[in-house]
Amino acid sequence: MSQFQANGDQLQLNGQPLSLVRQHAGQTPFYAYDRSVIHQKVRLLRQKLPAQLKFHYAVKANPMPAVIHFLAGLVDGLDVASGNELREALNTEMNGSHISFAGPGKQKAELTMAVGTQTTINVESFNELKLLKEISDELGVRARVAVRVNPDFELKSSGMKMGGGAQQFGVDAELAPSMLEKITEYGLHYRGLHIFTGSQNLNPESIITAHKGIFELANRLQDSAKSDIETLNIGGGLGIPYFPGEKPLPLEPIGESLEPLMQQFYSRWGNCKIAMELGRFLVGDCGIYVSEVIDIKHSRGTEFVVINGGLHHHLAASGNFGQVVRKNYPVAVGNKMSQSKDKAVQVVGPLCTPLDLLANKYELPKIDIGDLIVIYQSGAYGFTASPRDFLSHPQPVEILV
Amino acid sequence: MSQFQANGDQLQLNGQPLSLVRQHAGQTPFYAYDRSVIHQKVRLLRQKLPAQLKFHYAVKANPMPAVIHFLAGLVDGLDVASGNELREALNTEMNGSHISFAGPGKQKAELTMAVGTQTTINVESFNELKLLKEISDELGVRARVAVRVNPDFELKSSGMKMGGGAQQFGVDAELAPSMLEKITEYGLHYRGLHIFTGSQNLNPESIITAHKGIFELANRLQDSAKSDIETLNIGGGLGIPYFPGEKPLPLEPIGESLEPLMQQFYSRWGNCKIAMELGRFLVGDCGIYVSEVIDIKHSRGTEFVVINGGLHHHLAASGNFGQVVRKNYPVAVGNKMSQSKDKAVQVVGPLCTPLDLLANKYELPKIDIGDLIVIYQSGAYGFTASPRDFLSHPQPVEILV
Repeated sequence: MSQFQANGDQLQLNGQPLSLVRQHAGQTPFYAYDRSVIHQKVRLLRQKLPAQLKFHYAVKANPMPAVIHFLAGLVDGLDVASGNELREALNTEMNGSHISFAGPGKQKAELTMAVGTQTTINVESFNELKLLKEISDELGVRARVAVRVNPDFELKSSGMKMGGGAQQFGVDAELAPSMLEKITEYGLHYRGLHIFTGSQNLNPESIITAHKGIFELANRLQDSAKSDIETLNIGGGLGIPYFPGEKPLPLEPIGESLEPLMQQFYSRWGNCKIAMELGRFLVGDCGIYVSEVIDIKHSRGTEFVVINGGLHHHLAASGNFGQVVRKNYPVAVGNKMSQSKDKAVQVVGPLCTPLDLLANKYELPKIDIGDLIVIYQSGAYGFTASPRDFLSHPQPVEILV
Repeated sequence: MSQFQANGDQLQLNGQPLSLVRQHAGQTPFYAYDRSVIHQKVRLLRQKLPAQLKFHYAVKANPMPAVIHFLAGLVDGLDVASGNELREALNTEMNGSHISFAGPGKQKAELTMAVGTQTTINVESFNELKLLKEISDELGVRARVAVRVNPDFELKSSGMKMGGGAQQFGVDAELAPSMLEKITEYGLHYRGLHIFTGSQNLNPESIITAHKGIFELANRLQDSAKSDIETLNIGGGLGIPYFPGEKPLPLEPIGESLEPLMQQFYSRWGNCKIAMELGRFLVGDCGIYVSEVIDIKHSRGTEFVVINGGLHHHLAASGNFGQVVRKNYPVAVGNKMSQSKDKAVQVVGPLCTPLDLLANKYELPKIDIGDLIVIYQSGAYGFTASPRDFLSHPQPVEILV
């Protein structure tokens, strides 16, 4: 993968050979995240997208505390999806005024944390808004709320559709004006709007179309708001390449289209904060999942490379997390980077299930026991999005290098 | 579901109303497993299948210690898939002579545990066998080994194919004779054969056909063994109904077919132990996953019931764990059992992803906040087979009642 170098046979992470990164981890399997790749990703966004655009990190993509703390120093805000994520976000240098909290089904204890810390709460239902009014009265602190809007259009070519049609997320665009009224009636602090349409999109045209829709909708809704807009969260949706044939998303056209939309919005509503919320795009590329070959066996003409990691640590790479058709994540032998491909093999984990397949008919150099199998694009939705207790094998560790 | 009673509006678990079961759990969401349902399942097997057949519990289906300990008192052996499972199995009244250990990619530390505790190791590769010889020499204890065979036939209608063709499991039937020779050469203790073809099968005819193939293969392989066979593990594969139209597997025809196969085998090889290994069949029905309704919202004509549990606790019920087509698990409102259906709703969890869908267009009684949503058939591959840290929400608990 182009974000990593190799030195001879050794894959390099942030200037260190994998052989030493492995010592840092202290065991296999492990996840390793490369600071320099994250930093480069933030620089790229700042270069290619409008200077006034703010960037938030969506913690759910990778909530390892070290990653959150590192990103807190690089981005303009943090977005959280649970009380526990909020607690860790508040442990960084960011305070509540730079944090927002979204999610259907926030619980009272979580909402109370958010009100008490002056975190912006992206409200997703009328019941939730009523609860926030009660909490505000109890605490004597006005909840800071933004309206999460389920738009009346869809993001095309999206890996995951998060808006349009009937959704559990946010309030329907057509109900947003009455929610804005309720915010005024309840005397809560109106922060602005959060309009998110979908994730993991590699098509710049559909992202541009979505942005146009988002700004059009934001202008329309703000018309019926009784207070100034302080913040507009336009969501994220920028994808990263995982599978053969996928290419990195070009940011220039997105930036060129965003600039006039933002200027128009400022000219109408004053200098509010316009933010893009990114998870996978910021951290997906930076991570690798590394496990060790513990057996090589042959069955009826097929070579099986058995590793000490598997789907229990990296469900998405096994193709079993919501994917309709299983595709291989990019894989390499991290200690044989200069060696040419030998033959196609099956890379399988130690679980007693045929689902535990990490690479299917994948061409790799000749494998020996002890080799390090690297799965790229593992920085987002890996460690925490996996059933790590399945079959009670040892846990992987995570390191930031 | 027929394995549970209701008393008025309350679902009953082992004679207790759900309202009290919930107090035992101390929180929602929780998993609750009903001892009486497990017990009934074991009784059913003993009634319908041949008297001499032994039953093993495959711990991976539900490794909650209380469940393992309860089953250890009811079945004839435990089967484990990792060192941690083995440790817990040995904490029961069972010792190594009633435990077997299977899985591709067993690690040296795990194999050493198994050799040292005289656990039967289902050997799955020639490298593993060599390692066992080394460990035996180091410890001065002969490893007790069975050969896990990848059969030269397939189990039809199986939820998951575990044998036939090229597999990561076991050694191919055609290589088994040379593995039997190696066992003799290495001086290890030969225990017998393990032949497993697939899981979650609801078709008695295909199970019967598989049994015939298993016994035919076992007879053929034992011909080339140099030692007596002490144990024959014929696998499991007995399914349970999850989805509309699925019916409980009838055991009578399976028993009738097994009886003569077993008698023939005894007459040829003496009185060895013939065991069936069951996980899901023993515990799948006994469990429910219970979460609480925390919001009810409407979006463009659809009612969304938002609960405080979701795919992070019960991945399989969300349809995202290896399923090709999402189907609803059976669902009920555990505190409104006598109420008639009101309308079809979406039951969704608190995660910021459309994958977090627990019931799709499901007809339920009229829902109020605080109601208890029960997902049945949750006793196997639930708690441990779920990405419980995904979005960092509070953990569910497990209880045995």
